[in-house]
Amino acid sequence: MVDIATRVWNHKWKIDPIVRSLIDTDFYKLLMCQSVFRKKRDTNVTFSLINRSQNVPLAKLIDEGELREQLDHIRSLSLSRGEGTWLRGNTFYGKRQMFRPDFMEWFENLRLPPYHLERVGDQYELTFEGKWPEVMLWEIPALAVLMELRGRAVLHDMGRFELQVLYARAMTKLWQKVEDLRQVPELRIADFGTRRRHSFLWQDWCVQAMLEGLGSSFVGTSNCLIAKNRDLEAIGTNAHELPMVYAALAEDDAALARAPYDVLADWQEEHDGNLRIILPDTYGTEGFLKRAPDWLAGWTGIRIDSGDPAAAAEEAINWWISRGEDPRKKLIIFSDGLDEKKILELYRQFDGRARVSFGWGTLLTNDFRGLTPDDRLAPFSLVCKAVSAEGNPTVKLSDNPNKAMGPAEEIARYKRVFGVGDQEAMEVVV
Amino acid sequence: MVDIATRVWNHKWKIDPIVRSLIDTDFYKLLMCQSVFRKKRDTNVTFSLINRSQNVPLAKLIDEGELREQLDHIRSLSLSRGEGTWLRGNTFYGKRQMFRPDFMEWFENLRLPPYHLERVGDQYELTFEGKWPEVMLWEIPALAVLMELRGRAVLHDMGRFELQVLYARAMTKLWQKVEDLRQVPELRIADFGTRRRHSFLWQDWCVQAMLEGLGSSFVGTSNCLIAKNRDLEAIGTNAHELPMVYAALAEDDAALARAPYDVLADWQEEHDGNLRIILPDTYGTEGFLKRAPDWLAGWTGIRIDSGDPAAAAEEAINWWISRGEDPRKKLIIFSDGLDEKKILELYRQFDGRARVSFGWGTLLTNDFRGLTPDDRLAPFSLVCKAVSAEGNPTVKLSDNPNKAMGPAEEIARYKRVFGVGDQEAMEVVV
Repeated sequence: MVDIATRVWNHKWKIDPIVRSLIDTDFYKLLMCQSVFRKKRDTNVTFSLINRSQNVPLAKLIDEGELREQLDHIRSLSLSRGEGTWLRGNTFYGKRQMFRPDFMEWFENLRLPPYHLERVGDQYELTFEGKWPEVMLWEIPALAVLMELRGRAVLHDMGRFELQVLYARAMTKLWQKVEDLRQVPELRIADFGTRRRHSFLWQDWCVQAMLEGLGSSFVGTSNCLIAKNRDLEAIGTNAHELPMVYAALAEDDAALARAPYDVLADWQEEHDGNLRIILPDTYGTEGFLKRAPDWLAGWTGIRIDSGDPAAAAEEAINWWISRGEDPRKKLIIFSDGLDEKKILELYRQFDGRARVSFGWGTLLTNDFRGLTPDDRLAPFSLVCKAVSAEGNPTVKLSDNPNKAMGPAEEIARYKRVFGVGDQEAMEVVV
Repeated sequence: MVDIATRVWNHKWKIDPIVRSLIDTDFYKLLMCQSVFRKKRDTNVTFSLINRSQNVPLAKLIDEGELREQLDHIRSLSLSRGEGTWLRGNTFYGKRQMFRPDFMEWFENLRLPPYHLERVGDQYELTFEGKWPEVMLWEIPALAVLMELRGRAVLHDMGRFELQVLYARAMTKLWQKVEDLRQVPELRIADFGTRRRHSFLWQDWCVQAMLEGLGSSFVGTSNCLIAKNRDLEAIGTNAHELPMVYAALAEDDAALARAPYDVLADWQEEHDGNLRIILPDTYGTEGFLKRAPDWLAGWTGIRIDSGDPAAAAEEAINWWISRGEDPRKKLIIFSDGLDEKKILELYRQFDGRARVSFGWGTLLTNDFRGLTPDDRLAPFSLVCKAVSAEGNPTVKLSDNPNKAMGPAEEIARYKRVFGVGDQEAMEVVV
């Protein structure tokens, strides 16, 4: 029986919007946004899209008009009453009223600021300028829109049946990973795959697969909308943009050297428990830990997001021991380039020596590798980063020089200030 | 948007009928039925279910009440006007009005005769007695009902999501076979999988997969309902039941020895071209061909349905040569226990030496092997055969003694009459 009304309704849409909610974003964005709203509300920043995979010619694949329609749709969104209620009323990390009334009132009145889009060769220049708490909320939806439009461009040429088999294969592939992971019931894994997901519906499916397949090993999702709709824990803490902007605002080298710790001092004022997670790699993990104040060693854990994850975890464990802390009580969150084999390998290596947890991103929600001829649906490395703050360029060194960003002379200065020597370059898959 | 009317409608059904049409059956059943209707209309026969896979305890898995409901539903079916129109108006094997007015009139007034069902241990005894043209039409729906009810019994315990992954895996598996087969565009393959299909919907999906994936290499389906709905060729010729019943009716050994040829003489009166396909193995291929009259060597081809298919094809080729025929103009149809590897192997072996074609059955429409724990959805070997005619037991020898049937003393008599010596036993997978 064809539901004529539904069919007619579906054909009335001018576009099929990719992002349909302001909370279709990572939880840590909202946490950081509140922090920025309180401490750096008037800071002017610029965020910019960076396609590290230059072999993916986004401007050839994606129609500029379609991209504008999607971005314009996002600008038309505002927080719904139900979304506001969920943010205000929910318990996050065991804490009620994580989001304070002044922030919620601001958020409920927010529309995302304008974007600047220009085609340059086969790529798009997409930038966002304005007040930090507003601009920063563009990152995740902008990435999700570009990833999904690129997918749609590929899917457009496929037959109905071919599409069904494609998704059957993707489901089979993911479920095989779930079956491998469920062999270790003690695992703790969260979905961190919003930004580079194949599509919203696919991420939602992946979350359901994790939920049914892994049970209590699946601890939640970084995606607030999915967490809300499926009554799951929203997961996340903080990201590189905080130290990057704080550093760019530093007035001299001494302030620059302090900046990564100033960020965390501000964070500590606001958060406790499992939200006190160090992200040490922005300007090199080794130097960061060496110079860290003792109060940081008291934090709950560390997130490892670049470089060789096992080496970085060993470094953290040694650092805790050197500061008189018991690493077995500490949490290590791995979140860089994970797949099921890497997850199991890291778990076996560090279980018992620390508490370990995994933020599984792109290869959870976008592992379409090998499913189409020429691999035209394989995920690629797209980021959207703060590139300047109050006119000063931002810099990221990372533990992997292939993830570094910023002007060469500034990178040199940061390396000097943070005492970063030779680094091992590693391929950035996703 | 929930279509409330559809949902309420679905919940009004007392059962979910498995067979919903009298033409949800193999095309060759209707061809044979017309032949029987013309020549042996009043012959009394008994058909009986035989589960060769005694490790599948059908009566433990399938509720007797549910089975009766499904069989009763089939008895309530009659040919719809559209089905009658399709049979009357269609071109089959290039011929119009394949089904004659007197047969069509009889068929349009047909309801299937009663069944006899009894539980014996963990198996069901299911028999059908009556006039041959009526009783013979029970075979395919009875098998389809039992296969699908067994599947439903297994699926009943699975979660919604687990079910989705199950079918995703089955689709992935079938599509891989399709991709392997499409490497050889000259292949000719038909769906012969009605009787042991996983379910009607799944067979229909498999047919669509073949159609989209193989294009003109997919030559049609044995299932009349699917052929009608999807505007495909209906495929099939004749089966063992013809010589088995003719043989059982033979009054002495001389008549018995003639019976398999009498059947084909009757067939030749009615059909020409691609419908003149010899099925030689009922009482041993070797003796059948040796004693065959010369007019049989003029037929279009042969169907190989038991024993070692390559050996049987070699035998047929040698026989044609010995009778002065050019095997390259002959058609060899393989239809026993095929899977994609076997199809490709046989094609490579015989392409150029004869025209080859494939009737792909159980492992097309029911390859759920390896998809559930304990393989509880794997296909199994269920048949429904004529076991007696006018009180005389039927006998099948086959080229594989594991497929033989009939009382021991009758098997011995048939072996003597048809000069069948030692045979190589081969495992019957499906």
